[in-house]
Amino acid sequence: MAIGEFELIDRYFNRPLASSSHGVALGIGDDAAILDVPPGKQLVAALDTLVEGRHFLPGTSARSLGHRALAVNLSDLAAMGADPAWFLLALTMSQADDIFLTPFSEGMLQLAAEHHMALVGGDTTAGPLTVSVQVLGTVPRGAALTRSGAAPGDLLFVSGHPGDAAAGLELERGGNDADESTAAAQLRQRFLFPEPRVALGRALRGLASACIDVSDGLAGDAGKLAAASGCGVRMETDELPLSSALQAVVGLEKARYLALTGGDDYELCFTVPAHHLAEMGSRLTNVKCEVKCIGVMEAGAGVSVFSCGKQLKINAQGFDHFSARP
Amino acid sequence: MAIGEFELIDRYFNRPLASSSHGVALGIGDDAAILDVPPGKQLVAALDTLVEGRHFLPGTSARSLGHRALAVNLSDLAAMGADPAWFLLALTMSQADDIFLTPFSEGMLQLAAEHHMALVGGDTTAGPLTVSVQVLGTVPRGAALTRSGAAPGDLLFVSGHPGDAAAGLELERGGNDADESTAAAQLRQRFLFPEPRVALGRALRGLASACIDVSDGLAGDAGKLAAASGCGVRMETDELPLSSALQAVVGLEKARYLALTGGDDYELCFTVPAHHLAEMGSRLTNVKCEVKCIGVMEAGAGVSVFSCGKQLKINAQGFDHFSARP
Repeated sequence: MAIGEFELIDRYFNRPLASSSHGVALGIGDDAAILDVPPGKQLVAALDTLVEGRHFLPGTSARSLGHRALAVNLSDLAAMGADPAWFLLALTMSQADDIFLTPFSEGMLQLAAEHHMALVGGDTTAGPLTVSVQVLGTVPRGAALTRSGAAPGDLLFVSGHPGDAAAGLELERGGNDADESTAAAQLRQRFLFPEPRVALGRALRGLASACIDVSDGLAGDAGKLAAASGCGVRMETDELPLSSALQAVVGLEKARYLALTGGDDYELCFTVPAHHLAEMGSRLTNVKCEVKCIGVMEAGAGVSVFSCGKQLKINAQGFDHFSARP
Repeated sequence: MAIGEFELIDRYFNRPLASSSHGVALGIGDDAAILDVPPGKQLVAALDTLVEGRHFLPGTSARSLGHRALAVNLSDLAAMGADPAWFLLALTMSQADDIFLTPFSEGMLQLAAEHHMALVGGDTTAGPLTVSVQVLGTVPRGAALTRSGAAPGDLLFVSGHPGDAAAGLELERGGNDADESTAAAQLRQRFLFPEPRVALGRALRGLASACIDVSDGLAGDAGKLAAASGCGVRMETDELPLSSALQAVVGLEKARYLALTGGDDYELCFTVPAHHLAEMGSRLTNVKCEVKCIGVMEAGAGVSVFSCGKQLKINAQGFDHFSARP
């Protein structure tokens, strides 16, 4: 039943590199990987962990878990405007079995192939199910997006449909009482298989003044961007790009609440100076991802949320990993 | 009691960079770090995970855990002959408390400072205690050591005193019946605070034909080096550099057994062609780490172990993470 670490990596993860993977001088199988960062590029590095019972439900789809563990890290690269290049995997699980590892590795490696990434190292250990992924990307020197470049007057945008993933998670938790509608299936899909906005982040290089990925709730993450940039942010709930699926399943009021505070969206929230709007519109015609203006940066500090010109009180704190999850 | 992720990183881990840290264009606090790999250098990346109950005993010293989690990764860089540069930390723990985090972060950051490394990113999550560290280093282009360059006739070396750490772990497990001698304390120290052989690895660039770090037992790891190099290896137990502490605590026979099969040494095992021996001797006068010739590479395959000219039968398999630990 149990198989060895080396056999495990070889059997499930040691696929031939995608033809467009590049810069791998030495991949899996030695003490470390040796990688070539192209001249003129900076290295971009991020790491995120998914823990059973915390970031995914016990019994969750292994294919989704493999996908999400890489996707949440790719989302960090997207927020920096970086090009994904390589990743390493730390996989801790109670036992190595084919029923888990086949769909898990397929979910992960399919997403990796879509983004021309190579798995170059990792570590498998026995223990409670935990997946840590480290991604490495590159960006032209000085071109990375950060959280800290926004200025008062810059317009605030978000990609896709925030709130869908949080509703999808609620549906996943519903178990037997689950809503079987098409809309519900769409929301579940958005939670289980988020699409990191890598192409969008790349297109925003040189245009966006600041960018963050929405993992802990849109209002909280916009607040982090504002704080890092030393300004405030005003958001308009009437402008939120709510999906019809979300409104159909939870209604308008809860849809707005989930869009502002729900986690797991992995959309990009970014700011653009007005004089870059035309260029952005032109560049985004080639990116399969809608973006919507939902507010504006202003002098001062903090997040204010308005509806029909009236300010709302809302809990705008990000999801805090050591607080209870709602 | 519980504190937030951002506060946690800031309070315990966000120290000013060591003055000699370099190449950090953007550190902790954004979606990812931005790093500058110097021209002419390749990137070297490794990742290792420690899980409670598997790689360390419940209730183990938090300072040791912080040290070891980084040390085992630095050992991978050492085995490649790489210069450590940056690291990222994925810390999963049931709750964030000061009693754990203060010594844990001190143990980790002190070792990082000794090696001029900067912590540039990470993720803290709630869950069973698991520590994943990703290290990034650099090496002059083409100069990395690998496992695969050894040839028949090359001499086999090991650094330090293999077996000490395995004996130290046994003593740690002993609990109340523990041996309180000075020798026992030395062995425990070797398990709790291994010293990654970074300076040795660097000195071996251009001299060693192959190198591996000894994490799973010397005989097994020498076997992996031999297999990667397409040859066999002959080891002489009479030449093993057994420490006097190890022999005092467990006796000669068990000392040899632990030196060949015990894990957690984090010494370097490497091969050197005869024509490089003089140069190696000269370079190692500046490295505070003894090395000892313990065998020779030979044509064929596999590991053979000799004592007084007679071949021994020994279980030379590496520690397999999905087999029961002895």
